Amino acid sequence: MQTKDKKCDTRCSSKTLYIVGTGPGSIEYMSQRACAVLKSVDVVAGYTTYIDIIMPLIEGKKIISTGMTKEVDRVRAAVDTVKNGQSCAIVSSGDPGIYAMSGLAFEICKKEDIKILPPSSTDKCTAKNEIVIEVVPGIPALSSGASLLGAPLTHDFAVISLSDLLTPWELIEKRIDAAAAADFVIVIYNPKSRKRNWQLNAAGKIVLKYRDKNTPVGIVRSAMRPEQKVDTILLKDLDTADVNMQTTVFIGNSNSFIYHDYIVTPRGYTKKYDI
Amino acid sequence: MQTKDKKCDTRCSSKTLYIVGTGPGSIEYMSQRACAVLKSVDVVAGYTTYIDIIMPLIEGKKIISTGMTKEVDRVRAAVDTVKNGQSCAIVSSGDPGIYAMSGLAFEICKKEDIKILPPSSTDKCTAKNEIVIEVVPGIPALSSGASLLGAPLTHDFAVISLSDLLTPWELIEKRIDAAAAADFVIVIYNPKSRKRNWQLNAAGKIVLKYRDKNTPVGIVRSAMRPEQKVDTILLKDLDTADVNMQTTVFIGNSNSFIYHDYIVTPRGYTKKYDI
Repeated sequence: MQTKDKKCDTRCSSKTLYIVGTGPGSIEYMSQRACAVLKSVDVVAGYTTYIDIIMPLIEGKKIISTGMTKEVDRVRAAVDTVKNGQSCAIVSSGDPGIYAMSGLAFEICKKEDIKILPPSSTDKCTAKNEIVIEVVPGIPALSSGASLLGAPLTHDFAVISLSDLLTPWELIEKRIDAAAAADFVIVIYNPKSRKRNWQLNAAGKIVLKYRDKNTPVGIVRSAMRPEQKVDTILLKDLDTADVNMQTTVFIGNSNSFIYHDYIVTPRGYTKKYDI
Repeated sequence: MQTKDKKCDTRCSSKTLYIVGTGPGSIEYMSQRACAVLKSVDVVAGYTTYIDIIMPLIEGKKIISTGMTKEVDRVRAAVDTVKNGQSCAIVSSGDPGIYAMSGLAFEICKKEDIKILPPSSTDKCTAKNEIVIEVVPGIPALSSGASLLGAPLTHDFAVISLSDLLTPWELIEKRIDAAAAADFVIVIYNPKSRKRNWQLNAAGKIVLKYRDKNTPVGIVRSAMRPEQKVDTILLKDLDTADVNMQTTVFIGNSNSFIYHDYIVTPRGYTKKYDI
């Protein structure tokens, strides 16, 4: 780690865009690599709520902080900062690669025809339209949520966002149907927002076509944060679930069971191993 | 964190089973919580390779270390250790909830009729057949691999293991077909082992029924370890991919593209946002 820390002081890593996952909530669940990057960069960009959580690590730094809907502006400002010779970290909670900022950063680089170099070649990054990108992974909500529910993801699973802002509802519906029919455990991101309230019930109805009404469902809200809330319910009661934008929903497969309030998806469909 | 560290010294947390994810490779990508737990427990159980990686944190501790195929013995020994009053951490690389040890631990507790209490109730854990379980999540291979490839997981994805040791091949095949038909990005775990060599090609053929032969595919081997290897290829060339048991394979969806050797799955299927 010292080697990488030192790199942050050299001229060339100052042309590096870091896309950093801060994990589920508190700094306790961030990686050492993420901490080291946040401490060493010149500028930090992120949604206000995430910036507040990491403030102890970045005090005194320049912050590009905007509201949730200004994602494109924020990433573009971060890319400009790096092109102009500084280092900048874009922060996301969870993992930055899962429904988060890393896709947008690469999309903007393509749009602006910026050449991307890997972290190993910081010393070659000299041209004006070149930047280095390092994506620093974080613990995603699917992992932090699962850890609080027990072991719901010990078998194949599908991850689906119910946000129809950028994806047509017909495609979301098709994916829920396919995942339910093929007996995937289903992890639902963005089940609800202030403007979207019917999608989770609609999803539940599709899954009920294929799965027993007593299938275990886990509802995890704000994992590892002070307002954390974990519930285990049954699929037939999904319409009563207490969900918001900070909630991840886990629908078990046909073999999942509840034991002492924990959801467990067994590893084997066949009985080749004997416990 | 100090509060939780202190808990590890009290009598009751000595009846705690920790199921700890060490992340992709080096200690640099572990969470502070995982480090603190490993430093404070009495006993550590894990596959020899993972134990070696974390050795700097656990020197001098009692180790339950067995080969890869002795998983059930290892978890049972860990559960017994905890029942007898010590604290024990079962370690997995990546996230312990994804195709890893947490499912087996809960299954064994059910089999042995052991009551499981949450971490918040260590002081109530007094009966002989009660233990506390805390699952400490880690950065999974799907996140570490994606971070090296660029941004392949910015949209819905399905995670499928090709190991047919505990799952019939017919079900694996059905899931690949469903995921491909519904245009999920597909993440493949366990693509190959010494005894299994034909499954990845079979999976590729199924996906080709639905997806263009030039669909980007990312091959990540031993992410964040000295032997790390990252390749970006096309779906039609999957049969030439250099994979082993430490490899994760990422197959893009119909919108994924390659830009400067990085795989990017755009966030939007519709064009509601303008970059």
